[in-house]
Amino acid sequence: MIFLDNASTTRTDDECAAIALKYMTENYFNPSAPYHVSVELSNEINRSRENILRLLKGEGKIIFTASGTESDNTALFCTKKKHGSRIVISDAEHPAVRKCGENLTSLGYDVVYAPVDEAGRVKTEEFRKLINEETSLISIMHVNNETGAINDIKTLVSMAKKINPSVIFHSDGVQAAGKIKVNLKDLNVDLYSFSGHKIHSPKGIAGLYIKKGVNIKPYLIGGGQEFSLRSSTENVPGIMAIEHALSKQITAMDFNLSKVSDLRNKIINNLDNEKYKLISTGECSPYIIMIALKKVRGEVMLHSLEKYGICIGTGSACSSKKIDKKASFGAYLPEEYKRGLIRVSLSRFNEENDIECFINSLNLEYNTLIKYI
Amino acid sequence: MIFLDNASTTRTDDECAAIALKYMTENYFNPSAPYHVSVELSNEINRSRENILRLLKGEGKIIFTASGTESDNTALFCTKKKHGSRIVISDAEHPAVRKCGENLTSLGYDVVYAPVDEAGRVKTEEFRKLINEETSLISIMHVNNETGAINDIKTLVSMAKKINPSVIFHSDGVQAAGKIKVNLKDLNVDLYSFSGHKIHSPKGIAGLYIKKGVNIKPYLIGGGQEFSLRSSTENVPGIMAIEHALSKQITAMDFNLSKVSDLRNKIINNLDNEKYKLISTGECSPYIIMIALKKVRGEVMLHSLEKYGICIGTGSACSSKKIDKKASFGAYLPEEYKRGLIRVSLSRFNEENDIECFINSLNLEYNTLIKYI
Repeated sequence: MIFLDNASTTRTDDECAAIALKYMTENYFNPSAPYHVSVELSNEINRSRENILRLLKGEGKIIFTASGTESDNTALFCTKKKHGSRIVISDAEHPAVRKCGENLTSLGYDVVYAPVDEAGRVKTEEFRKLINEETSLISIMHVNNETGAINDIKTLVSMAKKINPSVIFHSDGVQAAGKIKVNLKDLNVDLYSFSGHKIHSPKGIAGLYIKKGVNIKPYLIGGGQEFSLRSSTENVPGIMAIEHALSKQITAMDFNLSKVSDLRNKIINNLDNEKYKLISTGECSPYIIMIALKKVRGEVMLHSLEKYGICIGTGSACSSKKIDKKASFGAYLPEEYKRGLIRVSLSRFNEENDIECFINSLNLEYNTLIKYI
Repeated sequence: MIFLDNASTTRTDDECAAIALKYMTENYFNPSAPYHVSVELSNEINRSRENILRLLKGEGKIIFTASGTESDNTALFCTKKKHGSRIVISDAEHPAVRKCGENLTSLGYDVVYAPVDEAGRVKTEEFRKLINEETSLISIMHVNNETGAINDIKTLVSMAKKINPSVIFHSDGVQAAGKIKVNLKDLNVDLYSFSGHKIHSPKGIAGLYIKKGVNIKPYLIGGGQEFSLRSSTENVPGIMAIEHALSKQITAMDFNLSKVSDLRNKIINNLDNEKYKLISTGECSPYIIMIALKKVRGEVMLHSLEKYGICIGTGSACSSKKIDKKASFGAYLPEEYKRGLIRVSLSRFNEENDIECFINSLNLEYNTLIKYI
């Protein structure tokens, strides 16, 4: 199995799995109970929280949620906004943000979409034009989940706050945190989503950074956990595992970035420009590469590569099994590439021979498939 | 360690932990991806879903959530209700339901509270009087999380539907599913919440039963997972573990009920009526026993028992560390018992000598503490 769909999910790191296991069967207590072992566990959770805040260089607090989607939904729905006020999201957001945008439109908000370039990156000047003094909320993803394009969040925040200092700026950092260097204080975002299962922690655990001084309402209400901002018995195994996953990824950031960049370059340098068009241009995370195949459908290539034991993506797996639905990227592509999008996404578990095998198989299959078109 | 706070959480069963581990490190794929291993995984999830439906004898579907709180919040907020219509919840609901009630009141709904008896059980006749043709939603827990009192959900549903056949009836079954016999078709509820970590599955996984023909809106929106009713990458390790946990509990239901009932009886039969008052009277789950201590505070007893390695509760751990806040039970108690509530909650992992040790330690500590009052 050569797994090159790491933007959809990743294999849990053995150490993270062992940590989760320990908090399931040994230190399994409810952190909200008043006895000593629970109080200790509650302290451990708070230490994890502080460590993640330090690792992402934020000033404020972290709340734990069950998914990137929950973090995004919380950011979009639970911030204070004047009824009917303007909300700006990008044209290339993950459905976890986009669907909230549609919902907020139906609730009477003035939701507008910031146009993106051919790699899915927000166009800075066009973004600026959308911001006005009535803008209450902005949500722009840090790293695009389909192309890896990095948005210049720092500049976008600065632009927006110049026009309206009270605007709340959220960024979906699910494909960024633990993969590229993130300095939340420097980015100056108010809210930032991150997720565990994209960085070798188990599924079912994620988080939301809330900058100091920013107020949100809770999305889930009940027993009052997570500073009363997210009720539910704390998922202790998940919390301990995501902290370790982030810590491991960030401690080895330079090593991982160098390794994954080498793998990415190997792919890009071997792309035959006659057959393939690289979509992931400009400043991109090395972890995600989007390629458009000439005349061959992305979905067909995905299934063709399965016989070599290679898993790739065609876009966001989270958007169900549909492909090529992204008008935003497709708009810039010549007609014969439009249905040929594939996404190759890497992790630190990939090795050079995985990439060689992928390139050879891709070429072999392309040459076979093109004959039938 | 003698863990007698199993209504707050339980130790994960080793088999469930092993299953979770397998789906973290081996079969770790994203069930929404289009390649074969993911399609297979998606089928496995649906088989789990169907098996849980069969185990709980429901007719409709199961969606997976991250917590009982999330299931409850979904039931309360995502059902269709005419603005300003009546909503009935019981006076003894868990905060995951009670807080939603408060929220719905602030949104303009006519939320009313069904009175409960001294064990926290809804008073049937008083309940009936609250239901009218304008009632859109009812939420009554199946087993009370502090006393173990079982509500006669079947009768309550039948009463309510006779007055208003279109009312949606939700029951929080977090302390029932897998512990007492549950037949959803027979209860005739529309929505039913259950949770994993109360029955030896890991934390962070739960579910909501939706009766066939009942429509709800999604609470979390995004990629469209769980029939578009709960977006987020599926927590596969959790899903597989909760199915196994439920299956194991329900397969051994008679054996477990008999074992736990024996342990409960041992406690109850050894209670000195001069010192302790049993709150859990009438039809109760054997898993939860609430006792009021005469003159001695529940919190003080809880901490006194810690030196014997015994963990008990004083009420819902989910309601943070506060105790004795339940006006509903307290109202029936003589003054000198009011601050003495302790909760002993059992699991199939408890043995007879745990109970002997508890009884001896309780008596010893009571006799010491009472001297200082």
